[in-house]
Amino acid sequence: MKVVGLYEYLPIEAQESFLDVIVDTPKASGHDLLVRIQAISVNPVDTKLRASKVTVEETPRILGWDAVGIVTEIGDAVELFQVGDAVYYAGDVTRPGSYAEFQLVDEHLVGAKPINLSIEEAAAMPLTLITAWEALFDRIRINPDADAGKKLLIINGSGGVGSIATQLAVWAGLEVITTASRDETITWSKQQGATHVINHRKPLLPQLKALDLEGVEYILCLHNTDAYWDAMQEIILPQGHICSVVELQNPVSMSLIKDKSVTVSYEFMFTRSKYNTDDKVRQHDILTKATQLFEKGFLKTTLNHVLTPINAATIKEAHRMLESGKSIGKLVVKGFEENDEQAN
Amino acid sequence: MKVVGLYEYLPIEAQESFLDVIVDTPKASGHDLLVRIQAISVNPVDTKLRASKVTVEETPRILGWDAVGIVTEIGDAVELFQVGDAVYYAGDVTRPGSYAEFQLVDEHLVGAKPINLSIEEAAAMPLTLITAWEALFDRIRINPDADAGKKLLIINGSGGVGSIATQLAVWAGLEVITTASRDETITWSKQQGATHVINHRKPLLPQLKALDLEGVEYILCLHNTDAYWDAMQEIILPQGHICSVVELQNPVSMSLIKDKSVTVSYEFMFTRSKYNTDDKVRQHDILTKATQLFEKGFLKTTLNHVLTPINAATIKEAHRMLESGKSIGKLVVKGFEENDEQAN
Repeated sequence: MKVVGLYEYLPIEAQESFLDVIVDTPKASGHDLLVRIQAISVNPVDTKLRASKVTVEETPRILGWDAVGIVTEIGDAVELFQVGDAVYYAGDVTRPGSYAEFQLVDEHLVGAKPINLSIEEAAAMPLTLITAWEALFDRIRINPDADAGKKLLIINGSGGVGSIATQLAVWAGLEVITTASRDETITWSKQQGATHVINHRKPLLPQLKALDLEGVEYILCLHNTDAYWDAMQEIILPQGHICSVVELQNPVSMSLIKDKSVTVSYEFMFTRSKYNTDDKVRQHDILTKATQLFEKGFLKTTLNHVLTPINAATIKEAHRMLESGKSIGKLVVKGFEENDEQAN
Repeated sequence: MKVVGLYEYLPIEAQESFLDVIVDTPKASGHDLLVRIQAISVNPVDTKLRASKVTVEETPRILGWDAVGIVTEIGDAVELFQVGDAVYYAGDVTRPGSYAEFQLVDEHLVGAKPINLSIEEAAAMPLTLITAWEALFDRIRINPDADAGKKLLIINGSGGVGSIATQLAVWAGLEVITTASRDETITWSKQQGATHVINHRKPLLPQLKALDLEGVEYILCLHNTDAYWDAMQEIILPQGHICSVVELQNPVSMSLIKDKSVTVSYEFMFTRSKYNTDDKVRQHDILTKATQLFEKGFLKTTLNHVLTPINAATIKEAHRMLESGKSIGKLVVKGFEENDEQAN
């Protein structure tokens, strides 16, 4: 099968940062599905894992954790899917990724693709959707019954996770304030459902006070936790909850966090698969529930750009775009050259 | 009224670290109760606030946040209590404390004293009980229905908070492992309901593994969060929850906490009163529920030592004992000299 792989971890401009390679197609066993990939999306984890390091791989390393495709083979223990099912998933960061014609994925991490989304619209979603869902409902444990009307500040509202997190929080009855700084990101974030968009290049608390808000019950930090730590300590209400997807790198003061009895969660979408937790099937359940919400029109895709076909050149272009730091919503790469028709 | 106060923040050995002083008795208004104090207990917050600093008070500063007493006067907005009620409470750290013949306290922070506990047995409880209750049920949000059988590690199990937290967690159906290092603290902690007591002077994870435990779902850190941070990162299970009453002081790595999607809460018992949160009455509710649990025999006092009467000499002795770092359970000071009879 064709894959886009790497042997060395190089800057994206390097000739061999990604290569078109042929490898053996894997076989499904146990709880694995073999999926023929139709489209993938790129995420910050892809560029982080590609970051320059001295390691050299003997077999090509395949990145990519987001895919839409068709199940072509199932392991003997599979119970949730059948050959021919259209699926979407983010997968497991410890296993080969989705820049490939075929990929193995544990059925517990997979959902049925929403029928009202195109292949590329669906491929944009799994990783960011699961991240946002776990952050809001498993870490902060927002309860739509009890929390309606509470306020959530999303730092970096217009990226992949921020966009779908905004939609999910609005669906759960929260009032969402996001941060953005450019006209196009402000517009995009409002389209996702943000009530207010404030400028993350200026002090945040005065902007909230100008909106008659003394603080917020919840904060989702999707960009440089260190840089926003002091602002978050000020903004979070007593007994509030902050969830971050970016770990603190430097010493920070915890005194106000302690004084206010604040809770801080980290969200890493690959915890369940990496540690093989007992509740790993939760990701199947999240994707299944999200599919219902897409099909009922409560959620919409955050797709913003499509490249084609899936090869080393377009993957390089996708990484370049992601590394510019100016992404809005999601970037998808669609179809292999010889199966373009199947993929459409 | 007689109070034990200070004008200067001095080491406890200093002649004037505490003084017997006469001040005007306050009047109750609004939601305040005026309570005639029968017994108080000392807590680490008392010694922290007494720590040497250059500030000099013009009027005597009264410390002490734990009391049992009788309501002698009520403000015009009081709804929950009447004159003559026997009450217990921790109060509000921003207001004058309980080293006094009389104290004002907001009714929302007060509970009816358990009838089956003596004055000194009840005086031992409020601050540590509320801290432990908020940590387990408001911060970690342990749910007795869903969490039965899960494991809680309490670092420093034999102190005031650790002792009642052990009892509460056992009542909620958890398996509790505590840390202690001396024979008498190990015995005490097992009496509170700990299934296992491990030694906090030795590496913790190997001791848990020797008990066939790979980790725990929950950790309550009641001593030097910095010192136990690396051990807690190792011991906490993926998606686990750590609650600490001691803020981090130094830079620590968050990488494993992030990798495991761990949640870290801080618990400060005075958050609700200090910030006057909408849910301040929760402390009345906690004390009310705890009174039921004491009266039904599900909880028992953690009182371990009583001094008498309440004066500068015994308060100094109580602070000295607390600062030794060897306290087991709780230390209560009971009765003013001229109302010893009333207080008994």
